[in-house]
Amino acid sequence: MSVAQEFEQANQSYVSQFTKGDLALPPARKVAVVICMDARIDPAASLGLTEGDAHVIRNAGGRATDALRSVIISQRLLGTREIVVVHHTDCGMLTFTDNDLRGIVKKETGHNVDHFSFLPFSDLEQSVRDDVEFFKNNPLVLDVPVSGYVYDVKTGSIKKIE
Amino acid sequence: MSVAQEFEQANQSYVSQFTKGDLALPPARKVAVVICMDARIDPAASLGLTEGDAHVIRNAGGRATDALRSVIISQRLLGTREIVVVHHTDCGMLTFTDNDLRGIVKKETGHNVDHFSFLPFSDLEQSVRDDVEFFKNNPLVLDVPVSGYVYDVKTGSIKKIE
Repeated sequence: MSVAQEFEQANQSYVSQFTKGDLALPPARKVAVVICMDARIDPAASLGLTEGDAHVIRNAGGRATDALRSVIISQRLLGTREIVVVHHTDCGMLTFTDNDLRGIVKKETGHNVDHFSFLPFSDLEQSVRDDVEFFKNNPLVLDVPVSGYVYDVKTGSIKKIE
Repeated sequence: MSVAQEFEQANQSYVSQFTKGDLALPPARKVAVVICMDARIDPAASLGLTEGDAHVIRNAGGRATDALRSVIISQRLLGTREIVVVHHTDCGMLTFTDNDLRGIVKKETGHNVDHFSFLPFSDLEQSVRDDVEFFKNNPLVLDVPVSGYVYDVKTGSIKKIE
């Protein structure tokens, strides 16, 4: 059975208990969370979110540049007025350089991806500061509160960085 | 109190019950889910995911092109071997065109963003097919099972499209 088929089965029990069919499209808590795609992080459980609360934007690393399109839509069309960036300990983005991954992709596919940045980082806390600053300084992003955290995959806790 | 401060408070109760401190970095179920950032969707609850299971990539619309960097990292470095795309009913991406949003951003910021695509769509099921095809045909993406669903925000159910 594919994982997709397992999702279909699991979804049936979610549907049987579903009571959130009348939520509004704009996030009730007017916040966009930018957080890593890492499998170990459950943003809803760890940050106290429920359906309808927040836009949750996830990508490899929780990088701001990669989230810009989504944040513009979130703010300009759907009214969010706060951004929270969350990176985490033991992140895969700490384990490689752009040149490492470009080499792997070229070796495995034959395609040259030297123009491509995979947005890795070598300093976790600095990566949070960089991404908070990116949002604070980007002229396409509203002047709203932006804060940054590190999530600890060993303890489930978040620590404020900026 | 900012929403970020509310997250800090909510996180304390998550930490007090946290038992998942020894999970591996690679996703246990070897799947990457590409799903919209919409506030009404809880991917973990609605698809039966728990911490450690899956990469969850979220952006406005759950668009494939925007997820490519993350999917490459997910597959080449962290071993996922299946992709599940999930778009949803009542999506904000159905409510505007690129020119609409370019006009709003230019009016509100003074910056010309005519080079920018916000990746809206006018046909929900076709958008799922398009994004499944994008992954199936992209030479940088592994030849793995890719399926596509529509999530119904009124019922919590997923429907297979492709």
